[in-house]
Amino acid sequence: MASVELIAVGTELLLGQLLDTNTAFVARELAEIGIDVRGTHAVGDNRERIAETILGVLERRDGAIMTGGLGPTVDDVTKEAVCDALDLGVELYEPALLQMQRFFARLGREMRPNNRKQAELPAGSLPLDNPNGTAPGFVAFGRTGKFVACMPGVPREMKPMLAEKLVPFLIERFAPRDAIYTRVIHTIGLGESEIDHRIDDLFRSSENPKIAVLAHDARADVKIMAKSESTAHAEAAIAPLQREIEQRLAGFVYGIDGATPEGAVHALLRARGWTVATAESCTGGRIAAALTSEPGSSATFAGGVVAYDNDVKTRALGVDIALIEHEGAVSEAVALAMARGARERLRTSLAISTTGVAGPSGGTPEKPVGLVWFAIDAADGRSCAAHVHFRGDRAAVQARATTYALGMLWRHLSRDSLSS
Amino acid sequence: MASVELIAVGTELLLGQLLDTNTAFVARELAEIGIDVRGTHAVGDNRERIAETILGVLERRDGAIMTGGLGPTVDDVTKEAVCDALDLGVELYEPALLQMQRFFARLGREMRPNNRKQAELPAGSLPLDNPNGTAPGFVAFGRTGKFVACMPGVPREMKPMLAEKLVPFLIERFAPRDAIYTRVIHTIGLGESEIDHRIDDLFRSSENPKIAVLAHDARADVKIMAKSESTAHAEAAIAPLQREIEQRLAGFVYGIDGATPEGAVHALLRARGWTVATAESCTGGRIAAALTSEPGSSATFAGGVVAYDNDVKTRALGVDIALIEHEGAVSEAVALAMARGARERLRTSLAISTTGVAGPSGGTPEKPVGLVWFAIDAADGRSCAAHVHFRGDRAAVQARATTYALGMLWRHLSRDSLSS
Repeated sequence: MASVELIAVGTELLLGQLLDTNTAFVARELAEIGIDVRGTHAVGDNRERIAETILGVLERRDGAIMTGGLGPTVDDVTKEAVCDALDLGVELYEPALLQMQRFFARLGREMRPNNRKQAELPAGSLPLDNPNGTAPGFVAFGRTGKFVACMPGVPREMKPMLAEKLVPFLIERFAPRDAIYTRVIHTIGLGESEIDHRIDDLFRSSENPKIAVLAHDARADVKIMAKSESTAHAEAAIAPLQREIEQRLAGFVYGIDGATPEGAVHALLRARGWTVATAESCTGGRIAAALTSEPGSSATFAGGVVAYDNDVKTRALGVDIALIEHEGAVSEAVALAMARGARERLRTSLAISTTGVAGPSGGTPEKPVGLVWFAIDAADGRSCAAHVHFRGDRAAVQARATTYALGMLWRHLSRDSLSS
Repeated sequence: MASVELIAVGTELLLGQLLDTNTAFVARELAEIGIDVRGTHAVGDNRERIAETILGVLERRDGAIMTGGLGPTVDDVTKEAVCDALDLGVELYEPALLQMQRFFARLGREMRPNNRKQAELPAGSLPLDNPNGTAPGFVAFGRTGKFVACMPGVPREMKPMLAEKLVPFLIERFAPRDAIYTRVIHTIGLGESEIDHRIDDLFRSSENPKIAVLAHDARADVKIMAKSESTAHAEAAIAPLQREIEQRLAGFVYGIDGATPEGAVHALLRARGWTVATAESCTGGRIAAALTSEPGSSATFAGGVVAYDNDVKTRALGVDIALIEHEGAVSEAVALAMARGARERLRTSLAISTTGVAGPSGGTPEKPVGLVWFAIDAADGRSCAAHVHFRGDRAAVQARATTYALGMLWRHLSRDSLSS
């Protein structure tokens, strides 16, 4: 399998003024054709440093794939650096010059000498035509047979060049057969270390397919990656591992391959013909926002109340003011009353509520910042409540409480499906 | 001036499955304090390759700054690689262990041996506490006096650690003098090209300070950057340019240096002792979520209704069902009725409403996907409505409509302040 490293060129990348999305895009495309990306780099518009980086990569890998620094300005020195690194001169690539002349004629603008420079390529290189801009890309070759491929940094020019020119070259040169296939198992409600504990042995024993755990707040993904020559082979390698992992994490797996907690909730609601409403205090509309991010959510999500003020809890949800005064707004009783109020007033099958202390102020020793009560009220009487003490700042508490609420809703609905 | 390179760790970065936003963020923060980032790298979860990359960086620079690979799983090997590269053992960092024990106790979960591993740091290193997660960061030192700083890869944990722990360390160690100072002027309601047109001449004539325009949907930031040896010098260079730009963009500037539209809205509400409510259809709770992201927002934001279903518009907001049938849910009349219903029922000074077609389905020739009606109902009678046809997919329409609503609310409140 061919191995490469990627080099993105541009001082703005080192200043953080431009987010480099090219590298992830190129990496993804290369993975699909079985080219192994072993490292990525960003360097400034510095000829010497670029050449140094190229030489470092070629020492370790079969080739380097670069983006950026092919423009007409004095800042653009990628081509010069490639020539330095591979000890090559330049030669004029006529088709690029002609294309550029036509381009400037059409615009009625005069061509500058620095534009002509763009039509020069390292001697002996394979040109990569650029129908979407003036700078052609190229693949230059060193005396050791290793290659340096260069593409423009503008994504609109780079992406078609990669797909239509560079990928075919790489497939022909390396005839890669093994592509990487992935399956992602999405879980909610389990910590990263708990997942690790449950599947640690699979982790250690499996090289191909390989397993990785990625945590996102209250959610975590288990990723299974198989290197294989065909989809069928990959599927056969992944399937038993997937079944085993799903079994060990049973009750916490809400979907695979890009599923979202809100999507899983809607699917279960649709299956039963049920609707849901929200009654949010500390999450301030975030649960409703998540539920409405799904296309077609109006069939299962009726609406909700953001009851930030205690007055609104009473007026819009019918929570007894005496209950709030006696138990406090952040309490099991108020959470349950909020959920019931939302379900009854919006006439849904069930409703979920949140009430908590998002911070930074408002915490007390008994009800510290981060404490959140959740409740579900259901028309079939199976209501429930739970509380969690979340860590982190206001944004973290709000985000984690939202994810927790979606997980609670999903567990409630999936338990229901199991028992019926 | 100190020079460093950044190293992001994670196999998912090399597969292009995760877009690395940490590197650009860290680079930007370092530029602000005058630390020169000379290169960036991403490497997989491979102990040997990480150690190799660290050694390469330390050969060229004063230090390496790393993100990722500090978690509890067997995949997380950044710390081990740092120890390999610098030839260091590990030692237990008691405060991190205690914090972790408290964390697991609170969750009622058992701590695993792999969690304990997270509290071990390379011998002699400076710990960087992590209030937002279990893995502490650290700065390890080589025998040559060069340093390797390691932070978690989760942005929510990394960002505060960088700002509160690592940046102060770097400033003290390198006492950078020529730092980059920035002032950001936040605008809402003007397109990027309109801003460009209004300040084009300033753009061209100014090298230091330098001006840049960054567009974010319906908002745009104008950034003034000055390289200077002191805050006072930078301030003197920036101030006249800032005044000129603010004048040219008058009526659209809602704040500077990290101000948010929701923060600007709350400030104007506070100044008048007013409260606001929301009545959201197509934005599905996103305006409420934005308004509740501000600490202390309960003083000025009472709550809201997410009236997704027409039934809920009637039941929870008192919108006449005949009006919905006659005008359609996406109409000026219904938007106004929703805002009035929210203001009256939640008893606030004013309320803002949205009703539109977020898509992908539900559009008609008269009411296409992306059409959104907005209305403000105010106790003082100055109500208004507007409609916009947003481009983009469902998520884009929802996000842009939310920003537009905040801008409309802000303009309503600031016009009011001017005229009174």
